[in-house]
Amino acid sequence: MTSRTWPTAEPLDGVFLALSDPTRRAVIGRLGQGGASVSELAQPFEMSLPAFMKHVRVLESCGVVRTEKRGRVRVCVLEGQAISQAESWLAQQRAAWQAQADRLVTYVEDEQEGVEGDRRRQ
Amino acid sequence: MTSRTWPTAEPLDGVFLALSDPTRRAVIGRLGQGGASVSELAQPFEMSLPAFMKHVRVLESCGVVRTEKRGRVRVCVLEGQAISQAESWLAQQRAAWQAQADRLVTYVEDEQEGVEGDRRRQ
Repeated sequence: MTSRTWPTAEPLDGVFLALSDPTRRAVIGRLGQGGASVSELAQPFEMSLPAFMKHVRVLESCGVVRTEKRGRVRVCVLEGQAISQAESWLAQQRAAWQAQADRLVTYVEDEQEGVEGDRRRQ
Repeated sequence: MTSRTWPTAEPLDGVFLALSDPTRRAVIGRLGQGGASVSELAQPFEMSLPAFMKHVRVLESCGVVRTEKRGRVRVCVLEGQAISQAESWLAQQRAAWQAQADRLVTYVEDEQEGVEGDRRRQ
């Protein structure tokens, strides 16, 4: 099997998987305001701390969140780069799609002009 | 339980989950060049058609891809809106992160100026 056939895990796999959960997206939203301890982050969610920690670990393992020890507290910090990479990938796809949609509009307009030109010549 | 505690599935859940697979991202990349039949799309991948169809259905169910019948062929088309929504969400998070990083830089600079001012006054 070639790598094309059965692609190995790519960094974006983990980032997009991490983003597919509303709790994890809410955590990212909160961390956009600045670093926070795990207990601060967990506070709005009525789930057990171990269950919440799983979400933090998913975010950490794909590089979206970094944790650092500040005194006796472990603080989570957003890693902007992973978010930017995912955003760039989507921007590329959207730009390609947009360019193709624009080409389609031009083609339809050219076709219409052609039909109208033929009509005038008749 | 409130909806905040245990959020119901949101549209972005499905979109990001769909994006977490390299085969599906490759399909999106191909569809950015224009619509294509399932067999055309499946061609670069050495997997069974049923396995490939599962990927197409994941992309279809979250609204990233639309399929339409053209004569006897079912053609897949990219839906730019779902891609744009995911991109917008990421852009918001990146902007918040950036603003917070900028505030941090300003704070550190102000602190440094304060320290230097104190030093000059001594």
